[in-house]
Amino acid sequence: MHHVDVHMEAEIYGANNRLAEHNAEHFKAHNVRAFDLLGAIGSGKTSLIEKIVPELKSRGKVSAAIAGDVYGDDDFQRIIKTGIIAFNANTGKECHLDAHLVHHALDHMDLDNVDIVFIENVGNMVCPTDFKLGAEKRIVVISTTEGDDVVNKHPMMFRDCQIAIINKVDLAEAVGCNVERMIQDIKRYNPEMLIIKTNLKKGEGVKEIADALLA
Amino acid sequence: MHHVDVHMEAEIYGANNRLAEHNAEHFKAHNVRAFDLLGAIGSGKTSLIEKIVPELKSRGKVSAAIAGDVYGDDDFQRIIKTGIIAFNANTGKECHLDAHLVHHALDHMDLDNVDIVFIENVGNMVCPTDFKLGAEKRIVVISTTEGDDVVNKHPMMFRDCQIAIINKVDLAEAVGCNVERMIQDIKRYNPEMLIIKTNLKKGEGVKEIADALLA
Repeated sequence: MHHVDVHMEAEIYGANNRLAEHNAEHFKAHNVRAFDLLGAIGSGKTSLIEKIVPELKSRGKVSAAIAGDVYGDDDFQRIIKTGIIAFNANTGKECHLDAHLVHHALDHMDLDNVDIVFIENVGNMVCPTDFKLGAEKRIVVISTTEGDDVVNKHPMMFRDCQIAIINKVDLAEAVGCNVERMIQDIKRYNPEMLIIKTNLKKGEGVKEIADALLA
Repeated sequence: MHHVDVHMEAEIYGANNRLAEHNAEHFKAHNVRAFDLLGAIGSGKTSLIEKIVPELKSRGKVSAAIAGDVYGDDDFQRIIKTGIIAFNANTGKECHLDAHLVHHALDHMDLDNVDIVFIENVGNMVCPTDFKLGAEKRIVVISTTEGDDVVNKHPMMFRDCQIAIINKVDLAEAVGCNVERMIQDIKRYNPEMLIIKTNLKKGEGVKEIADALLA
């Protein structure tokens, strides 16, 4: 993000945080649990939604989603194929969602008939960190194909989230990724973080994620 | 990036563009050719540098590099192992390099003994597009593991660059990526773009990239 003016930046964050609190109250009033999905392009955020929606359904939970992208509706189209209600939020040129965009999306959703809302952010590891959206927990999805230095390059992201998903563990060897290094880096930045290893393409690790969300 | 104020934004871009032109003149005065490397985390920007530096050396060309990251020096450490001079540029919280940071890096480089400078931007597909740095060409590196919708999600990036590298083509099948879709999307947004398919881990496609850079 562009740090052109510290004072103005503080105002932007302050305004966003107030809207995020408002979103959080809105979720609470409707007895909805909301989860952010953060991570790079291709890390597996949409795949996570595709796989966890049926798992949550089998546990009696109805999901919904907000798909955030700069442009287009590729993720949105994948998500609605799961049969859940979803809202496509294009940011235009912005590299992240903000609480106002999420609030706008919520206006289009019948939260009375929803248990869980996933908020899939724009795919990148930098910008979304500073913008809280009102979710109960933030989940960062990284994949072995991003390189095992991805955690060390983005400490803020790991300090700011509560759950880390290490996806595409089946490809770790093929891409020369040391998963253990990723785990050690995560623990160094956030010792309390829950770490779940997955192969979301095959649905491996999805039950563990569902357990964590419903805990 | 945060579009808080159109007027201010125009001023930021204007100031950056003037500095980028200054960088371009600086490169020209030293008979140096500069190339931007843009793309997501793990797409293969650093791998490209690692593989092309020896190829260019075999053609009598001396390379140097600026490694842009939010935090840390993982890329920088990989780059200097190739034996070239490099400068590590941390942006702090910014999601992109700007022309001022590049100018600062150039002050630390003896350009009289360098033929080619690679400017590796922070790894994300959104923010770097608007900030020209003074390079002669912009190269975007995408990988099959990012999903075959990565181009469609980022039209700006493909309109703004001249060369597209599609990396990790060896993993396309394993991750269910339709490379042909990527190519068609690129051609739709930028019919003139040069597209090179690579497996940078094995050095496949590197000679073709070197040919393109030295053309």
